[in-house]
Amino acid sequence: MSKESTTIDVGESSNVTKSTSHVVVDEKKKKSFVAAASGGGYKRGLAIFDFLLRLAAIVTTITASSLMYTAEETLPFFTQFLQFQAGYDDFATFQFFVIAVAIVAGYLVLSLPFSIVTIIRPLAVAPRLILLISDTVVVTLTTAAAAAAAAIVYLAHNGNANTNWLPICQQFGDFCQAVSSAVVTASIAVVFFILLIVISAIALKRQ
Amino acid sequence: MSKESTTIDVGESSNVTKSTSHVVVDEKKKKSFVAAASGGGYKRGLAIFDFLLRLAAIVTTITASSLMYTAEETLPFFTQFLQFQAGYDDFATFQFFVIAVAIVAGYLVLSLPFSIVTIIRPLAVAPRLILLISDTVVVTLTTAAAAAAAAIVYLAHNGNANTNWLPICQQFGDFCQAVSSAVVTASIAVVFFILLIVISAIALKRQ
Repeated sequence: MSKESTTIDVGESSNVTKSTSHVVVDEKKKKSFVAAASGGGYKRGLAIFDFLLRLAAIVTTITASSLMYTAEETLPFFTQFLQFQAGYDDFATFQFFVIAVAIVAGYLVLSLPFSIVTIIRPLAVAPRLILLISDTVVVTLTTAAAAAAAAIVYLAHNGNANTNWLPICQQFGDFCQAVSSAVVTASIAVVFFILLIVISAIALKRQ
Repeated sequence: MSKESTTIDVGESSNVTKSTSHVVVDEKKKKSFVAAASGGGYKRGLAIFDFLLRLAAIVTTITASSLMYTAEETLPFFTQFLQFQAGYDDFATFQFFVIAVAIVAGYLVLSLPFSIVTIIRPLAVAPRLILLISDTVVVTLTTAAAAAAAAIVYLAHNGNANTNWLPICQQFGDFCQAVSSAVVTASIAVVFFILLIVISAIALKRQ
């Protein structure tokens, strides 16, 4: 970096005799070139990391959504009070989870082209800003789905004596297991999103 | 802006006869001055808006937390099956809500000095980056609290026939009203946080 700036100083001495406006333009070009050489490298690294994180988040969200979608348990016995079957569609919150996390997975797939653009042009501001703002909106959707499902899973495990909401995980252990896994997987996706936002912020900042 | 850059071109013509290194330094100074004059203005505006949004978010989160904390209803009658009283501490999720939203309010108060620094020095990168990253982490906490409480409020309103979780809002109407208001208020705080992150992103980006 210090070597490159020295080169520029030497290069300019031949331009001083020309008109001032030329010096300004040349200098701007050279400065942006230096910025590209020094900042572009680590920014391209950030962009590649961003792309890989998005791929991981796609896998995570699809796993979370399908874990919840396939969570189902049929009991081999029944009495007057126990149910035959528990599925994700017995709980409005779990239905919301499946739909919201599937939407997030779809968004992530659609965001891949923008991520590729930031790899090709690491210094472009617009795709970075678009990614950061939409990631911020989508992280709240993912968090809302995970937290709402977690609240219901907690209730299913522990019940609530004050309201006579009995725990159902004693009967539907496998169902609760699958649903809990889906919630944990979605929480990992939330961590990926926070990392994505931090990467975008660092890539956006001035040198 | 175009007028200012013209002024600089005129000012430089007297410097061309000096040594090259001086021209470089002067130009750098002038460029950053131009950037401060053109970019600093709207960035200072953004920083002031950021500060006001934080004040609004502090009011919102304190309101949400205290609404939930004071939500309580004692029924004037009781039978063998009905409860005497419902309070936020009867639900683990609502306790989490009170604590989480209070932490968020505390964070917002602590973030005010950083916001003031960005008003005084609109082009400083470090405080902006710190605010953006910590806002991102805190928005997930706020969203999680609001979404988890919303899931329980939904259950309290509608119940779940499949698990024999009966709606309690028929008995505890005022309690449900207060809790719902707290959830709505926290959701408004989430919107404020999204705006804060977008502002930080725009203020961080290169000119």
